[in-house]
Amino acid sequence: MDRFELIRGLKQPSSEKIVLLVMDGLGGLAKNGKTELETAKTPNMDRIARESETGLLVPILPGVTPGSGPGHLALFGYDPLVFQIGRGILSALGVKFPVRAGDLAARVNFATIDSQGNVTDRRAGRIPDEINRKMCGRISEIKIPGSEIFIETEKEHRAALVLRGMEFSEKLSETDPQKTGVPPLPVKPLDDAPASAKTAALLNTFLARVKETLKEEHPANMILLRGFALHTRIPSFSEVFGLNACAIAGYPMYRGLASLVGMEVIEVESGVKPQFDKLREVWGKYDFYFVHVKYTDSAGEDGDFDRKVSVIEDVDKNLGRILDLSPEVLAITADHSTPAIYKAHSWHPVPVLLRSKWARASGVAKFGETELAKGSMGNMPSVDLMTLLMAHAGRLQKFGA
Amino acid sequence: MDRFELIRGLKQPSSEKIVLLVMDGLGGLAKNGKTELETAKTPNMDRIARESETGLLVPILPGVTPGSGPGHLALFGYDPLVFQIGRGILSALGVKFPVRAGDLAARVNFATIDSQGNVTDRRAGRIPDEINRKMCGRISEIKIPGSEIFIETEKEHRAALVLRGMEFSEKLSETDPQKTGVPPLPVKPLDDAPASAKTAALLNTFLARVKETLKEEHPANMILLRGFALHTRIPSFSEVFGLNACAIAGYPMYRGLASLVGMEVIEVESGVKPQFDKLREVWGKYDFYFVHVKYTDSAGEDGDFDRKVSVIEDVDKNLGRILDLSPEVLAITADHSTPAIYKAHSWHPVPVLLRSKWARASGVAKFGETELAKGSMGNMPSVDLMTLLMAHAGRLQKFGA
Repeated sequence: MDRFELIRGLKQPSSEKIVLLVMDGLGGLAKNGKTELETAKTPNMDRIARESETGLLVPILPGVTPGSGPGHLALFGYDPLVFQIGRGILSALGVKFPVRAGDLAARVNFATIDSQGNVTDRRAGRIPDEINRKMCGRISEIKIPGSEIFIETEKEHRAALVLRGMEFSEKLSETDPQKTGVPPLPVKPLDDAPASAKTAALLNTFLARVKETLKEEHPANMILLRGFALHTRIPSFSEVFGLNACAIAGYPMYRGLASLVGMEVIEVESGVKPQFDKLREVWGKYDFYFVHVKYTDSAGEDGDFDRKVSVIEDVDKNLGRILDLSPEVLAITADHSTPAIYKAHSWHPVPVLLRSKWARASGVAKFGETELAKGSMGNMPSVDLMTLLMAHAGRLQKFGA
Repeated sequence: MDRFELIRGLKQPSSEKIVLLVMDGLGGLAKNGKTELETAKTPNMDRIARESETGLLVPILPGVTPGSGPGHLALFGYDPLVFQIGRGILSALGVKFPVRAGDLAARVNFATIDSQGNVTDRRAGRIPDEINRKMCGRISEIKIPGSEIFIETEKEHRAALVLRGMEFSEKLSETDPQKTGVPPLPVKPLDDAPASAKTAALLNTFLARVKETLKEEHPANMILLRGFALHTRIPSFSEVFGLNACAIAGYPMYRGLASLVGMEVIEVESGVKPQFDKLREVWGKYDFYFVHVKYTDSAGEDGDFDRKVSVIEDVDKNLGRILDLSPEVLAITADHSTPAIYKAHSWHPVPVLLRSKWARASGVAKFGETELAKGSMGNMPSVDLMTLLMAHAGRLQKFGA
């Protein structure tokens, strides 16, 4: 019996609300003996940590550094080794495209080809976004019977392509020849499934039409496709967990990841205070509230220890806005570590606290990595957090007699 | 290589004895800052905890509350998500019925129906066991071609039904209408498998015959069937672990679970002292001794914090009877938590200590949840306890060269 079969069989309704506050890249490493979180003055988090279950979460496996996709999927209860999000899908999510199950997505590069059809520049001279948008507009007018085609500007020469409306396959070769002086490659099916041949044929027809449509343009007179990815395998959050969930996230990637699992994405200005205020505004309409704070991660990536400390302090200062709502279950954690001294995502386990009336108080004096290693939850896989949140909210029946 | 393949390949004989003392539902939650176990005066357990490996066991998965079946199977080393035991089977085991692979079992309630066939009492006035036995005797005379039917008295209005001899399905609806004033429900197949339709038809024929057979009786003039469960084969404890095991348990359910995995069930009066004395009586005859104390769970279910505390103290006071035997390996733990303030089984990890001469002493000062969270074993899945017990008893060879 797999995890989702188990959860589907045990889930039950409850009126209790769950708040999952994710401070992106919160986990850190010590500078002068203390991590960012340990350096920050966090009286509110320290106080609730004392009465919460606490510990450290391992996002994927010990030593495995997660991207934003797997890090969040694990927190949402989706085994990131089972549910892998292809590059094409992440690209589409990154431009806020509302990807649906069954869609096929790919990453697009605008390129330059010569009169013989050979690629002379694989990035079309890194055209400005404005030209990119104009070309996407022209390509969007191409209609191919049996499927809808969407193309959205990302940045410079990059765009995202999404196909919808028939049974697609992602077992396809890419068209980028990875060098100049040769033509773009045709899309070829990589297995014998009828859907692969059919999808390849459709894409080759589309690419011929793109070439025709852009033939008078320069330098962006062709596109190259990479990272074909089908969006099929993700059961929705409400179907698996029985939770009506919303996402209060300011950045496209996280909004995209939330919409990918079927959470309702709330329009909100990015920022600790506006996002926490938005939570108050929609409070009571959902069972589950995913609140995403981006700036801890950005500061970590920039190697700015002090800025990361002050983002954490800002969250703590505003935490009352959430605590006032008295959510029955509150978890504060992260998708991965982004230690400022490491300047990148890392594999280190992330801080977690879980407060509810059924929490076994861990009595830790400080919400910080060193103390949390002694917490009552121990070192736990991130993917196990969801069942624990559900249990605390009275949303899981007993397993077996 | 799965867990059992690994263990089968590594197991080796040894003369060292293992005692697994299970205090049912031992894990708790704090009232006035301390759990039941932390409140109890347990000088003996505290003393041996100091020199034992200690920690907390996660019975199934974080957040998943186990029934008694899965909780015990995990302690016996059987992955509870792989080996699932239905209610009907547990009921049959509880009356010591020698269930075989392929048997279909169900829980039986004697009920009272009126002249219109409507249920007037779902428990037939909780008839005495003697009447129950008499009615079971009459029902046993019913013969249906193609299958054997067994019905055995449990207690009061409860009995166990076992069908044998054809390919059955357990995908069946129950007949208990859960209210009075309406007739018992027919058995309906819950999927499209031919075996489900065939089993449902057989059971409906049987129930019509039961109604006819008992029509002159009162108040036990009908039966209601619940918890249909097929018995799939479970590899035996001795075959997997190479251990000749016995169970010293006072309650039918736990005796049944032990017999399911092939432990020898010892006749014993239920109670801490008589069970511990029975252990002394049979000491030396087996390699592995499963001792089950029920009353911690009962007190927890009743929400009686103080009574749970005193059951724990009673176990501690009698612990010398076990310690005197100098078992080479002793584990004290639980199948699940039953916090008195929660009044039900819960998902919280359970206390564990493991004493042997090879234990890495964790030095915890008190056998209680908060201290144990810092123990040397950390938070470990219950299903991993068995290999650890075997290792400490010198019963597992090195893996690989």
